[in-house]
Amino acid sequence: MARLVVIGGGAAGMSAASAARRTAPGLEVVVCEAGGFAAYGMCGIPYYLGGVIADPRTLLAYPPAEFRDRRGIDLRLHTRVTGIDPAAHQIRVAGPQDGPDADGAPLRYDALVLATGADPVLPPVPGPSHPRVVTVRSLDAAIGLRGVLERGQIRRAVVVGAGYIGLEMAEALTERGIETEVIEALPTVLGTVDEPIARLAADEVTRHAGLRLSTRLEAVHGDDDGLTVLAGGTRTRADLLVVATGVAPATGLLTAAGADHLPGGALITGPDMATSLPDVFAAGDCAALHHIVLGGPAWVPLGPAANKTGRVAGTVAAGGAATFGGIAGTAVVKVFDTEVARTGLTLAEARAAGLDAVATDVVSRSRAKYYPGAVPLHVRLVHERGGRLLGGQLAGREGAATRVDVLAAALHARATVADLAAMDLAYAPPFAPVYDPLLTAAIKAGAR
Amino acid sequence: MARLVVIGGGAAGMSAASAARRTAPGLEVVVCEAGGFAAYGMCGIPYYLGGVIADPRTLLAYPPAEFRDRRGIDLRLHTRVTGIDPAAHQIRVAGPQDGPDADGAPLRYDALVLATGADPVLPPVPGPSHPRVVTVRSLDAAIGLRGVLERGQIRRAVVVGAGYIGLEMAEALTERGIETEVIEALPTVLGTVDEPIARLAADEVTRHAGLRLSTRLEAVHGDDDGLTVLAGGTRTRADLLVVATGVAPATGLLTAAGADHLPGGALITGPDMATSLPDVFAAGDCAALHHIVLGGPAWVPLGPAANKTGRVAGTVAAGGAATFGGIAGTAVVKVFDTEVARTGLTLAEARAAGLDAVATDVVSRSRAKYYPGAVPLHVRLVHERGGRLLGGQLAGREGAATRVDVLAAALHARATVADLAAMDLAYAPPFAPVYDPLLTAAIKAGAR
Repeated sequence: MARLVVIGGGAAGMSAASAARRTAPGLEVVVCEAGGFAAYGMCGIPYYLGGVIADPRTLLAYPPAEFRDRRGIDLRLHTRVTGIDPAAHQIRVAGPQDGPDADGAPLRYDALVLATGADPVLPPVPGPSHPRVVTVRSLDAAIGLRGVLERGQIRRAVVVGAGYIGLEMAEALTERGIETEVIEALPTVLGTVDEPIARLAADEVTRHAGLRLSTRLEAVHGDDDGLTVLAGGTRTRADLLVVATGVAPATGLLTAAGADHLPGGALITGPDMATSLPDVFAAGDCAALHHIVLGGPAWVPLGPAANKTGRVAGTVAAGGAATFGGIAGTAVVKVFDTEVARTGLTLAEARAAGLDAVATDVVSRSRAKYYPGAVPLHVRLVHERGGRLLGGQLAGREGAATRVDVLAAALHARATVADLAAMDLAYAPPFAPVYDPLLTAAIKAGAR
Repeated sequence: MARLVVIGGGAAGMSAASAARRTAPGLEVVVCEAGGFAAYGMCGIPYYLGGVIADPRTLLAYPPAEFRDRRGIDLRLHTRVTGIDPAAHQIRVAGPQDGPDADGAPLRYDALVLATGADPVLPPVPGPSHPRVVTVRSLDAAIGLRGVLERGQIRRAVVVGAGYIGLEMAEALTERGIETEVIEALPTVLGTVDEPIARLAADEVTRHAGLRLSTRLEAVHGDDDGLTVLAGGTRTRADLLVVATGVAPATGLLTAAGADHLPGGALITGPDMATSLPDVFAAGDCAALHHIVLGGPAWVPLGPAANKTGRVAGTVAAGGAATFGGIAGTAVVKVFDTEVARTGLTLAEARAAGLDAVATDVVSRSRAKYYPGAVPLHVRLVHERGGRLLGGQLAGREGAATRVDVLAAALHARATVADLAAMDLAYAPPFAPVYDPLLTAAIKAGAR
């Protein structure tokens, strides 16, 4: 019987395994997952840590039994892949003592899907590894950290890094009454949005937590009483240090084997999620994906594409046909009480790509001006001087999260700002002004 | 000096006047408005009546002085147009005693914009006109009605008609503690959505107010103590009867003069909002507009198109260049605590248009399933068997209002359900599941 091996039991890997099973009922499907959980919503971890979600099992899309018993997928937890030999079509596996991979014997595959995700990148600072210096990337670790948080042992925390995870963690910690400071090496938070939007997010952070920008973590020292954190020339004490300074594709096994990849390690994939190695596919955060605005590969590790590319990789690896349509770089994050959303290219990204781009900003309202609860909504459109829409960003206490999808749809349609201005968008006083903020922005952009 | 006359001071008319002023600073711009207010948000009236909005002046986009003093627009309130002579390029006007039109002399125009909106259609029932039998179409009348409501004289109300205005009025009245019953001649509420979505809206109505479907108003009798309402063979007492049985284009003056129009009276317009009569334009609820899915004229009287077509008509009437891109029939309504939204064609409309249409329904969730506050969101996609998207409808306690705009954008792009399924939509647990409900619906639709 032909065998598909999937490395990684996250969203991409389990989507691949399930799609392969649907495509080829007779295929043997093995999933090797290094951790103790599979198919969980990693994006929910900050909310689990903050207490918004009580039970970590609710983060599981399906329990392991669903895969093993109902879908016939050989899901092997606590099973680490230690080597890949593409020429021999086999991998080397270190599994638990009581499992099939205890002996470390090679595992042959007919097709392989790499869905190893991304690993946290730690800042290169002196300081010991310490149980109170943590990253937020696995549910196993999060369950341990939540226990620490619930025992009330953390009074002061420092979060290093002001990206999506760093800001979500700052919110989670402050919701537990922990005095929290965020330090960020860059001069703005959220490097994935332009400065005017980042400033709104930063303002929101400072209403709830400490924030020091342009501040590097210089050292961490642990002792019996906690941590001493040296950052920006200042020494502070903390009971917890959360490192959220970004992630890198976990592709060492394949890049060492010669797979084509971007400089940062993300694997180059085709529309069918095939890598440059025979019978090896990649999906999720370890893969570079076709960016519909850039027209080339980009590495934007986010949940929706992980699920979709997993489905494509598993279908194709099992002998079926599927293609991935590409990413627009759409993302949204809740920063305390503010929604920050983006799609396409920022102005900085567009100019870095050599495009003749400008940005048009408007501050409109989330509802009719006379309707209670209307709040300012900042819309930034990034577009070519000729009118082609390249991207958009929104920030406000409501109305940003779903509106960004209209811009994503416009990017998929290769719309101009005039096309956007002509769109017939919904109006009712509780939900939007008669000229939706997106239309107001598009009209202004079209007049340039 | 050349003169532009605009008939109607609502959203379309004042947009036309302002656009004309910007286009041709030397043009004389006269606006004749039959009522006592101009440029107000008619869609806000139910919220003003319900008490959500305190001051009716907040419904005004701008006060009259803004138009008269700052924009140089000759805005004439309480001024009714009684005749139009397209051949002679003049209208007949009845204005207040102290105004320029007191003598009823003809007013010559070089260009005319008809922005008369739509008038309520009253059910053809016996019964006297009575001060407690009201429609909801003008701010002048609403101010009087609000006084009645605030004096606590209304304990029981009947709303005739379960369209947008009828359901918004039911909400407004119940918010004031008034026992309210909605009666509707059709077997469903909201004739602009298909039955599954209408049923969700009807369920929501019945949680807050009485609802009798397939029930015709048969007679109303007024006496000193209030009203006797005969409907569906049942006689009930009420202190107020709100008639919200729809509207018809207020185009009698122009159709009598020979302007091309749809059977119901809506004026046929070109992309520049010109009617078939020389130098006569139309905008807003009195005009039929190009429907991007039907590919022909349709009458869908809603606020956003009124503003946009007013702007186009005024620009072109003043000698400038502009075109209206068409409507998708996008609309959203708050039905008590439920959002109901639609765009494009319903299944019924698509089949009536001769299209080989099917509908795909999914019930997904407004947020990640594990995130608090996630509620069911019903998505219906209407599409051709071949995959072309024709329309969509959503209903849920959150997440419908703005999501429908993604479908509107897809309709403008002539997308298929496969195109929609490939869109990179935003994900974060507080705002959407990792597969947005729109994607779940599109994937299911594509598999048919």
